[in-house]
Amino acid sequence: MTHNWSETELRVRYSETDAMQVVHHANYLSWFEVGRTEMMRRAGIPYRQFEDRGILLPVIEARIFFLASARYDDELVVRTRLAEARVKVRFEYEIARKSDRQILARGYTVHAWVNRQMKPIQLRKLAPELEQAMQAYLSAEGESQA
Amino acid sequence: MTHNWSETELRVRYSETDAMQVVHHANYLSWFEVGRTEMMRRAGIPYRQFEDRGILLPVIEARIFFLASARYDDELVVRTRLAEARVKVRFEYEIARKSDRQILARGYTVHAWVNRQMKPIQLRKLAPELEQAMQAYLSAEGESQA
Amino acid sequence: MTHNWSETELRVRYSETDAMQVVHHANYLSWFEVGRTEMMRRAGIPYRQFEDRGILLPVIEARIFFLASARYDDELVVRTRLAEARVKVRFEYEIARKSDRQILARGYTVHAWVNRQMKPIQLRKLAPELEQAMQAYLSAEGESQA
Amino acid sequence: MTHNWSETELRVRYSETDAMQVVHHANYLSWFEVGRTEMMRRAGIPYRQFEDRGILLPVIEARIFFLASARYDDELVVRTRLAEARVKVRFEYEIARKSDRQILARGYTVHAWVNRQMKPIQLRKLAPELEQAMQAYLSAEGESQA
Repeated sequence: MTHNWSETELRVRYSETDAMQVVHHANYLSWFEVGRTEMMRRAGIPYRQFEDRGILLPVIEARIFFLASARYDDELVVRTRLAEARVKVRFEYEIARKSDRQILARGYTVHAWVNRQMKPIQLRKLAPELEQAMQAYLSAEGESQA
Repeated sequence: MTHNWSETELRVRYSETDAMQVVHHANYLSWFEVGRTEMMRRAGIPYRQFEDRGILLPVIEARIFFLASARYDDELVVRTRLAEARVKVRFEYEIARKSDRQILARGYTVHAWVNRQMKPIQLRKLAPELEQAMQAYLSAEGESQA
Repeated sequence: MTHNWSETELRVRYSETDAMQVVHHANYLSWFEVGRTEMMRRAGIPYRQFEDRGILLPVIEARIFFLASARYDDELVVRTRLAEARVKVRFEYEIARKSDRQILARGYTVHAWVNRQMKPIQLRKLAPELEQAMQAYLSAEGESQA
Repeated sequence: MTHNWSETELRVRYSETDAMQVVHHANYLSWFEVGRTEMMRRAGIPYRQFEDRGILLPVIEARIFFLASARYDDELVVRTRLAEARVKVRFEYEIARKSDRQILARGYTVHAWVNRQMKPIQLRKLAPELEQAMQAYLSAEGESQA
């Protein structure tokens, strides 16, 4: 049931490896971010649009399960889906090796809408059309899952 | 009740900030790692010693709650403690701003002992004296908490 | 005269920005590395093959001129070419914004062949067929420039 | 003749290593930045003060010579000095291993004063007292060298 995931591909960079000769675990958070950026672009609500209007979506919680290692030059697939978009916004992720589709990591991030001073804002009030676009995307996702 | 935390200080680097003008969230995982390195050194079991013997302790799960932002040049305190050291090893962390002791983030990481081929190993068999040192540290911690 | 450059594209990640709200300059070295990896793959001498045989090519000198800024979500083109492959190996780079082809950075890196203990080696002796492949690529490049 | 260098110490983080099991070369640019931050603080002109007033000092050129490798948990010394502060500002750096003082890298960075829109500015006009403080530091340096 992964038809409603947004998929984006990337190749492991040498700078992302560490002395264990696999990818350093902190990079998975940056890859989740790459997945999130692509998912929002495809949903018609590119994150850059939010920031251009002074609306930020920082991470307030992150959780990752590391199941297997990625190595330099491996091709990976990052799957992202929007799981919740109310006061808090929640994205879920899977990272798989492209060659054999083995899942390397799973996780989620939780976010809150804030302004440039990092104060909480209500998206509905500041940018109702962006709020609607997110809700429309989430509903469409829900239907495609049914 | 923080007397049994190992504390280490660091100053936010410019390269750790992002376009939100605060620290990018992925750096907290690297700071947890800095805290872990120092805690193990003080416990008499420096992590480098493990790796020199081909024994690695990769992260298999990480969870972080981001409570407030850190900015360039802020001085921070990373508090680390060993919470469990059985088949899995678990460290807990708090990161606070030094000036006002405000907690910026809390989290934990879970690790497993593996060899250079990333295969699980039993620390007790491969390096009994390192295993004992970890247990001794954990017991001493427990007593100091009582 | 850029027909002999190997081009690879990438999109600026949020984690690559800093508090100036542009890309942190250290990332250009990682992007040069991405360009180098792709150029070598297309030349039929993927770098991973070298490392799998215990032959490393660390950077011994790097120079970069930063001409304009890259921002989050910008699409970039990294152009790489092999400029010299004797005792030392030298790659040259240009990074341009994809939309208007403006050059953002220019630079080069110089490398030396070493083994896993970081001791200098002669590629010709350890891996003559890889040495020949590099020379063949360099000659072909020279001819296409003439 | 190193008495006029500002020295700051740091310990290699695991996240700074790469699959060659030494520090990834891009980190040296971040360490140069750490050295620059500390040098400016000691000179009484902390960089954060500049940014708080909308005055930025981005890197426009960087050059590094890598002489030897740094490894996880190594203690390093970053030496920084201000070499020029006219239209362009130039810092020079040396990074040494603390234990045996072996030089691992040497380099310099060149910077220009710009505003938040990345447009060139004249420090003398926008912040004459910061300009004077930099000149005073540079003169004092020159004298201490004589």
